[in-house]
Amino acid sequence: MDSSSKTQGLDPPLHLLGFEIDELSPTRITGRLPVTSTCCQPFKVLHGGVSALIAESLASMGAHMASGFKRVAGIHLSINHMKSADLGDLILAEASPLSLGRTIQVWEVKLWKTHHSPQSKTLVSSSRVTLLCNLPVPDHAHDAADRLRQFSKL
Amino acid sequence: MDSSSKTQGLDPPLHLLGFEIDELSPTRITGRLPVTSTCCQPFKVLHGGVSALIAESLASMGAHMASGFKRVAGIHLSINHMKSADLGDLILAEASPLSLGRTIQVWEVKLWKTHHSPQSKTLVSSSRVTLLCNLPVPDHAHDAADRLRQFSKL
Amino acid sequence: MDSSSKTQGLDPPLHLLGFEIDELSPTRITGRLPVTSTCCQPFKVLHGGVSALIAESLASMGAHMASGFKRVAGIHLSINHMKSADLGDLILAEASPLSLGRTIQVWEVKLWKTHHSPQSKTLVSSSRVTLLCNLPVPDHAHDAADRLRQFSKL
Amino acid sequence: MDSSSKTQGLDPPLHLLGFEIDELSPTRITGRLPVTSTCCQPFKVLHGGVSALIAESLASMGAHMASGFKRVAGIHLSINHMKSADLGDLILAEASPLSLGRTIQVWEVKLWKTHHSPQSKTLVSSSRVTLLCNLPVPDHAHDAADRLRQFSKL
Repeated sequence: MDSSSKTQGLDPPLHLLGFEIDELSPTRITGRLPVTSTCCQPFKVLHGGVSALIAESLASMGAHMASGFKRVAGIHLSINHMKSADLGDLILAEASPLSLGRTIQVWEVKLWKTHHSPQSKTLVSSSRVTLLCNLPVPDHAHDAADRLRQFSKL
Repeated sequence: MDSSSKTQGLDPPLHLLGFEIDELSPTRITGRLPVTSTCCQPFKVLHGGVSALIAESLASMGAHMASGFKRVAGIHLSINHMKSADLGDLILAEASPLSLGRTIQVWEVKLWKTHHSPQSKTLVSSSRVTLLCNLPVPDHAHDAADRLRQFSKL
Repeated sequence: MDSSSKTQGLDPPLHLLGFEIDELSPTRITGRLPVTSTCCQPFKVLHGGVSALIAESLASMGAHMASGFKRVAGIHLSINHMKSADLGDLILAEASPLSLGRTIQVWEVKLWKTHHSPQSKTLVSSSRVTLLCNLPVPDHAHDAADRLRQFSKL
Repeated sequence: MDSSSKTQGLDPPLHLLGFEIDELSPTRITGRLPVTSTCCQPFKVLHGGVSALIAESLASMGAHMASGFKRVAGIHLSINHMKSADLGDLILAEASPLSLGRTIQVWEVKLWKTHHSPQSKTLVSSSRVTLLCNLPVPDHAHDAADRLRQFSKL
């Protein structure tokens, strides 16, 4: 299954913005977003809210896997926007756990931009997502874990 | 012009998620979002990243107007997610300034959910957006201010 | 018992900096700090870390009371510093709950400065403190609740 | 000059809590704090506000040096508290720059605890401090830079 279909099944708003998930594991989630007009703000640079949405999405998937597929709920997101990214840039994203407590997990999500080559990448934003973990899974939401298991091959 | 077209012209990603801007002034921005599957995460509740995107969007428009249509850039977003919102709920959003400094503005954005009636609304999230203001407007971005002026009747 | 002794019994670092607690209830904590050289940074204005310490302290006391004297633990603090306060200013602080969940509480703490009279007060900082609640109280820490009960007359 | 006197000259509240600065450079600030009753909250663990004060202090010194001794002002602090530290633990702190913009700097400050040996250290908290830089230095505050220059040998 290609990256685009995988993202569609796992996170509809992320897919809508054009993001594609690459790696998917309990310790590292990566993906990329081409900066199109769909994800820009009026000054024609990457919308800061899109960066925040990517951070919340990747951290939630990671925490979901790292908690053994129990339900997780993001309770706080803090993001520093450091550089703007222009139309035509490619955004690379990476999420990794900072702290995997039994009740609370904290994930860090970094976004870089590359223009000509992935060799020269510049930090665009850095986020911290705090999640409440090990919540009971409601009956109507078991397929959330199923899809994540399938795509991550866990 | 209706709310939907107004949002499309002012903020493409916000429009894509189904958000509609209502009031638009330098001291108060409001709008609403019906919670559809397009803006939910895998547990079928409002995606926390969508809440963050709304906060960043409304605060940026407000700061842009409050700075006299100079360019603004969000440098930090902090959001507390307090309650989940379900498919079918209606989200009401309101942004207002906490501090309007010459260089830095801080905006607060609150989201509530209503189910049956706007009389009983519950706080879903509360954000703080920090923006750098009074930046020079690049030549290719003058229409950003023009659209905002037009829709806000300022 | 006077404000100073009350603060000493409830929060040693807060007392050390010269802060005095006034009101103490599960929905509102207030106090004040004269800006002395002890609580300034090298540019001779109120140290931002002192503002953060006040926020964390007042929110923790409030959450402790609001959770029925179960143990609470701050997991995140976010503070916007908006105006500086000078040597000789008087800081007024107020904490109030934004969300009192069973597992997570969120408190807002605002600091204002007054110079000549409390009539003209200016917002210095605004914080959000996120706390994990309803944790078991360890045996050696029962007196924390006892002192808080005594001073708050709950 | 020993660590304690250095801290007293550079940051009075930090010194008051027992913190000692070790390394001092525009790219790395380190120090340590023995957890005494002076820096604990009522549950007899390190006060979260003390961790926040350390973060704000070290980031401010670093940003001050990195901006070429112009005035800097912290505008936002975000801290995740991950593990508690007990009376008798030793806290190790390290600040490093995430982004050194001309107008805005972002610093990361991490705190670890060690008990028996520095070999086994555990992350206690992780902070992000956002600072406005390159502000004019007021006449009464030139000695702030002088002390920092002296201690950092820059």
